Amino acid sequence: MMKQRLLAAAVSALSLAPIYAKAQELIQPIKPPAQINIGMVDLGKKLYFDPRLSKSGFISCNSCHNLSMGGSDNLPTSIGDHWHQGPINAPTVLNSSLNVAQFWDGRAADLKAQAGGPIANPGEMGFTHTLAVGVLQSIPAYVREFKQVFGTDTINIDGVTTAIAEFEKTLVTPNSRFDQWLLGKKDAINAQELAGYTLFKESGCIACHNGPAVGGASFQKMGVVEAYKSASKAEGRSAVTGKDADRFNFKVPTLRNVELTYPYFHDGAANTLPEAVETMGRIQLGKKFNADENAKIVAFLKTLTGDQPSFTLPILPPDSDKTPRPTPFSQ
Amino acid sequence: MMKQRLLAAAVSALSLAPIYAKAQELIQPIKPPAQINIGMVDLGKKLYFDPRLSKSGFISCNSCHNLSMGGSDNLPTSIGDHWHQGPINAPTVLNSSLNVAQFWDGRAADLKAQAGGPIANPGEMGFTHTLAVGVLQSIPAYVREFKQVFGTDTINIDGVTTAIAEFEKTLVTPNSRFDQWLLGKKDAINAQELAGYTLFKESGCIACHNGPAVGGASFQKMGVVEAYKSASKAEGRSAVTGKDADRFNFKVPTLRNVELTYPYFHDGAANTLPEAVETMGRIQLGKKFNADENAKIVAFLKTLTGDQPSFTLPILPPDSDKTPRPTPFSQ
Repeated sequence: MMKQRLLAAAVSALSLAPIYAKAQELIQPIKPPAQINIGMVDLGKKLYFDPRLSKSGFISCNSCHNLSMGGSDNLPTSIGDHWHQGPINAPTVLNSSLNVAQFWDGRAADLKAQAGGPIANPGEMGFTHTLAVGVLQSIPAYVREFKQVFGTDTINIDGVTTAIAEFEKTLVTPNSRFDQWLLGKKDAINAQELAGYTLFKESGCIACHNGPAVGGASFQKMGVVEAYKSASKAEGRSAVTGKDADRFNFKVPTLRNVELTYPYFHDGAANTLPEAVETMGRIQLGKKFNADENAKIVAFLKTLTGDQPSFTLPILPPDSDKTPRPTPFSQ
Repeated sequence: MMKQRLLAAAVSALSLAPIYAKAQELIQPIKPPAQINIGMVDLGKKLYFDPRLSKSGFISCNSCHNLSMGGSDNLPTSIGDHWHQGPINAPTVLNSSLNVAQFWDGRAADLKAQAGGPIANPGEMGFTHTLAVGVLQSIPAYVREFKQVFGTDTINIDGVTTAIAEFEKTLVTPNSRFDQWLLGKKDAINAQELAGYTLFKESGCIACHNGPAVGGASFQKMGVVEAYKSASKAEGRSAVTGKDADRFNFKVPTLRNVELTYPYFHDGAANTLPEAVETMGRIQLGKKFNADENAKIVAFLKTLTGDQPSFTLPILPPDSDKTPRPTPFSQ
């Protein structure tokens, strides 16, 4: 009898409306991170904020993927070593663990592969892996922390990028109003926002912007219906595959926290969400959204802002007397 | 009888050694901040971390006074807009509320007067007060927060710098091992550190480096006994007073957290503490410390590292569609 009641309760729980709704939707809620190595996260967080991974001692991961600003720098293209103007918009680090690959052209398979790129890019952090590791190896508190996490006395770039990637795995943004709605809180979004979501689905936006990250899962051509005019020289996926068919194919950006990650597109040319929605509708879907439709979609997009990562600003271990000092003004 | 015992105990407590020792010492413990307006601190913290106060959208107060790095940038001189090389070492913001005045030459009377300087300095944040305030005024969440704190709908530079200064008042570092010793924990510093403190006093370092900040209270000539050779063009206090007698007079820097605030001196020319102690002994006091004496003083100086400010990384309110966007690559 008791068992039957429990079984009935379980069946009833399984058929609850929110779960049913979730199964139907092409967007799924962001899950809090799981299988996280906390010690490695603490180390990776320090490294993420440490400008000593750059030649200048001035640029850290957080400079261009600023966790106070939606994991982005809110610039069309980023500023690198010696004020170098970057070639492409810095994608948000938030929820980047959900991406099919990293960078706009997907040239890095995962977060770990990505993390080493900017350190050694002359136009970004301008350093080398060898020199960056040499700096860390000269800092006793880092040596101890790497030993605690990885069990070895010798720091290497593999450990550095592994720890940064582990920290980045924690940079997910659950609990957006839209996710609350998906999970059953029916008043978490209002009628306009819901209408925007319906329009987002019916217009076809959701064909590319779906899944938990509302994007990030595929490469798609920028300019399906109409060519996209850009001052940017970036040609996207073809740089990786060498295939002409992949020209102007870019990774579909996540729309999570899109309210915070302006300006938009790989060239950062769209300053506002209404502008981005207008362009996307026109060049990807052949649709001209009227002002009311545009406003509804924008209202929906703003429900995708989730809980921003919340943590204490890390305090970095100081140099030792032997630490090579940064050289910001030499070439 | 009971009253007598209590009285005896109170008298005994009043005459405890730590209180006696404290009264004798020329260095006093850092006190936690008092009379703090918490709402104003929260606003000021956001502004301190907000690169939108710069023309480029890339440089915030925290860029050069990095609270992960002892409130400094650990560079000889700072990097400004368009990678401009600054003329002088960025002093730590930690405990700067205890300074007699701000900047190496004391040209700002207080933290509020200081805060406006870098925003409008072409070689630092490269903006204007009017443009910075215009950006903030266009951001609804900032408008609300300024209204909550200051009671007005209109943001002005006075409010901006007042809030930043209020946040900076909280950036004190109590509870260093040396302060614990001053407050009575006799095993908080070891024999070598205590010997270093004794030498610090007996050699005359304490003549300038005294008070709660162990410095910051006066202007003194750099090169009393022997001229200081520097590539820096900075001439210090004379730039403010116009008096030739003030040439090469600089504000005595605080030695609090000096372990974290390398490199040293107004030109950042001393990379390490042993180097700084050697130079100071020689040019200020006419003393040649031997290796053992130098090591003792350095050991003492490292006991001055206090609790670093601990707070959650602020999340900045996003731009509105009307917010003027940064222009990092225009002149």
